Amino acid sequence: MLKAAPAHAFNLGEKVEGKHIIILGAGLAGMTAAYELNKLGYTCTILEARERTGGRCWSIRNGSLNTENDKPTATAVFDEGLYFNAGPSRIPHHHQLTLHYCKELGVPIQVYNNVNEGAYYFAEGKGPLSNKKIRVREVHNDIRGYTTEMLSKAMDHGNLDSGLTKEDAEKVLNYLAAEGGLNIDKLYKASARRGYIESPGAGDKPGKIGDPHKLADIIQSGLLDPDFYNVAEYTYELQMTMFQAVGGMDQIAKAFEKKLKPFIRLGAEVTKITNTPNGATIIYKDKLGEHSISGDMCICTLPLPVLSNINNNFSGDVSRAIDYVEYMKTGKIGLQFKRRFWEEDDQIYGGITHTNNDLTQIFYPSYDYLSKKGILIGYYNFNDKAKRTGELSYAEREKLALEKGRLVHPQYDKEFEKSFSVTWHKTKYSMGGWGEYNSETRKTYYPALLKPDGHIYFAGEHLTYLNAWMAGAFESARSVVTALHGRVTEQRIKYPAAGVKG
Amino acid sequence: MLKAAPAHAFNLGEKVEGKHIIILGAGLAGMTAAYELNKLGYTCTILEARERTGGRCWSIRNGSLNTENDKPTATAVFDEGLYFNAGPSRIPHHHQLTLHYCKELGVPIQVYNNVNEGAYYFAEGKGPLSNKKIRVREVHNDIRGYTTEMLSKAMDHGNLDSGLTKEDAEKVLNYLAAEGGLNIDKLYKASARRGYIESPGAGDKPGKIGDPHKLADIIQSGLLDPDFYNVAEYTYELQMTMFQAVGGMDQIAKAFEKKLKPFIRLGAEVTKITNTPNGATIIYKDKLGEHSISGDMCICTLPLPVLSNINNNFSGDVSRAIDYVEYMKTGKIGLQFKRRFWEEDDQIYGGITHTNNDLTQIFYPSYDYLSKKGILIGYYNFNDKAKRTGELSYAEREKLALEKGRLVHPQYDKEFEKSFSVTWHKTKYSMGGWGEYNSETRKTYYPALLKPDGHIYFAGEHLTYLNAWMAGAFESARSVVTALHGRVTEQRIKYPAAGVKG
Repeated sequence: MLKAAPAHAFNLGEKVEGKHIIILGAGLAGMTAAYELNKLGYTCTILEARERTGGRCWSIRNGSLNTENDKPTATAVFDEGLYFNAGPSRIPHHHQLTLHYCKELGVPIQVYNNVNEGAYYFAEGKGPLSNKKIRVREVHNDIRGYTTEMLSKAMDHGNLDSGLTKEDAEKVLNYLAAEGGLNIDKLYKASARRGYIESPGAGDKPGKIGDPHKLADIIQSGLLDPDFYNVAEYTYELQMTMFQAVGGMDQIAKAFEKKLKPFIRLGAEVTKITNTPNGATIIYKDKLGEHSISGDMCICTLPLPVLSNINNNFSGDVSRAIDYVEYMKTGKIGLQFKRRFWEEDDQIYGGITHTNNDLTQIFYPSYDYLSKKGILIGYYNFNDKAKRTGELSYAEREKLALEKGRLVHPQYDKEFEKSFSVTWHKTKYSMGGWGEYNSETRKTYYPALLKPDGHIYFAGEHLTYLNAWMAGAFESARSVVTALHGRVTEQRIKYPAAGVKG
Repeated sequence: MLKAAPAHAFNLGEKVEGKHIIILGAGLAGMTAAYELNKLGYTCTILEARERTGGRCWSIRNGSLNTENDKPTATAVFDEGLYFNAGPSRIPHHHQLTLHYCKELGVPIQVYNNVNEGAYYFAEGKGPLSNKKIRVREVHNDIRGYTTEMLSKAMDHGNLDSGLTKEDAEKVLNYLAAEGGLNIDKLYKASARRGYIESPGAGDKPGKIGDPHKLADIIQSGLLDPDFYNVAEYTYELQMTMFQAVGGMDQIAKAFEKKLKPFIRLGAEVTKITNTPNGATIIYKDKLGEHSISGDMCICTLPLPVLSNINNNFSGDVSRAIDYVEYMKTGKIGLQFKRRFWEEDDQIYGGITHTNNDLTQIFYPSYDYLSKKGILIGYYNFNDKAKRTGELSYAEREKLALEKGRLVHPQYDKEFEKSFSVTWHKTKYSMGGWGEYNSETRKTYYPALLKPDGHIYFAGEHLTYLNAWMAGAFESARSVVTALHGRVTEQRIKYPAAGVKG
């Protein structure tokens, strides 16, 4: 059995008084740090450059504003009640801290339906299955059928040293037949698992099963390539059960904000971070001008590409790490439609359609099933594909999403209403999706950011092995609060008169 | 692409007046028939033996009553707001009529989380993995790893005639490596997909992956046997997306009831069904005594084992079919717990734990995640296992569920509060789970029930290829309404003065 320690409320015991911590960024990491530090008796000030909290934990709804570095600010115009999550949209069931804070802060959750055998694979312009909508279940079950048939034959012919006893090998053969849906001759000839061409029904309607796709066709259309296969369901983080916050993932950020309102300064853009002998001094500007604020310690949660452009007196190791750690290029577009044709016409309820073109993925909403309107995520792409779409204007991105999307769903033409796109690596105050390490950057640069630089601690998903996940922000915040509190309480024991009260 | 016609509102056009249809049974089939016949202008009377509607579409909540044929009536004593679905608990996304009626009647739906990689396989007293909680993901990914490794080797060694070109075979090899999570040498050495023994986290916690289970251990503990493998996710009907009605599946029945209240006679037990020259006459008894009611036609939705014990003048073919079609033996027990330990301690949110003992399955609730209390379905079993548990007293069933269940969840001891069990093949007015055909009964007996016997039509899931599913009731009801209405309107054309008005 694999164990996982239950998530408990954070309790570091001993409280302190009279300590002021400046937190840079009112994203999940910054707000969690402030929330837990408050409980321990600290006074916190959170500086947030945006006019909203949440950082990348951001749901786009009517009135949402996005500023990308080469474009004017865009305003979302969606119908009331409709939203899409521009940032994190999924909570794995084993991300205990994320679920812990949902519970502690009273944020209701619902299943995010990440696995949907009824969604499509769509290979644009490739192979014999080019431009056809292939249900995920067709490919999954055809491939299982063909590969189990092959292995079954190899075992039957003794062409295989499985290292198993004859009796065990027999059980594997039975399993293969079950796994693949093989017939009595251990051949794959399609099964109901891949769906029907005529549904079973009442009376004399037993249903009719179609022919499987040919293995060579599946291969030549690229449906075994990483574009399609295995991209979702198998990854530990993407295995069902998955959740989302009811009403938008930003409800988690809003729940923290509610607890922390007096401590958050919005529209406060940090311009300089200075370690001083007794603490840290931050210069920031807001509508009223430039300000300086000092604290005993500082927790900096700014994404590294943002931090990289802020004056500081960090050590060389820290500066290098800030400059060299890469961030993911990624973007999403939300498309509002008059009618949930993906449900009504295609019987697709949640889940993901995968494509080999620049869309990469179409996400169907996991909320308000059977209702009238809805927002699809028309693309969710990464790396080069995200770079290409990111360089387009808002109008061109919409055009791309509609042109490619209508190949899968011709209903786009009639039902489309409005779009809103976010390119994270161009979005002001984020400048990237998430910290994306390779073995080299993890080894060489990452460790420098795990220790405080003088009085400045660093926190965020980029300082974890849970990159891209909200859980990273939570875990990192707790880790830094633990370290900071340990240092403060140790100082108090060593230097009881040194201004630490309580 | 596999097509599925969209579900439309039922519109048979032409209305009739002055026709009275008697419907036997206020389950989903009976109420759907009445609902649609009402729209067409018919007058309906629904006779229902129970004091409630819904039949097997039944959620057990505080105050629910169950009468089994060898036991006193039991009353459920659960906390307010908690329930479990004794009958159907899942709606496949492709059961369009079920979703259609949810939409038309305003019954909100939520995801039924049927697939959960975090639930357990538990092999009691069998093999090296005996009595261990094995996460589904461990078995799934270990088996994928071992079998893809085997096939990969066979292909590499040319021990296999796959009929593929060299280039295509290379793609299959790459796919196998991805599918199985093989390492660079195409060997399976465990991967993060099977979970961690130490979760990845902040700072210096990359997470730690455990060793895979040995293939021989998996086999010898029976984890490749049908008890465990493939029982859920692959079946067409059990593929995600799946749904349930919010607040209990009985909300669907209650929504029909609301529309049909004036036409339903509860507590009306049918004792005799007679075809007459001009219609049908039904004798039924209620608290006040015996009554006779006549109609132009009758739709009988009573389960066949119930119908088998009611006096009738059916034809020989129909009588034989009623007697010979088998019904599934099946039962469930709901267990109320003080605390959702399966979520808090085990991170299991919805889904199913499979066992090789008489429990067969433990269902975790797909509603009220993160809340305080909850009801588990402590067993959901079939055939011989259901026969054995069905023969126990209510107290003995509870004892069995607790004794076997605590092997998986020792928290049962401390957290258990109350139970309620239903054995369908012993439950009065149902006497079985659902129609269970083999090729012989489907061929020999089934067809006789698809035609009307005189003025009596038969409807229900047992008259479809959607046995056990609510969709069967809906499809069958529409099918019979179509046939009945066709006959009535045809008669009207042929015999315009024969009492058919409008």
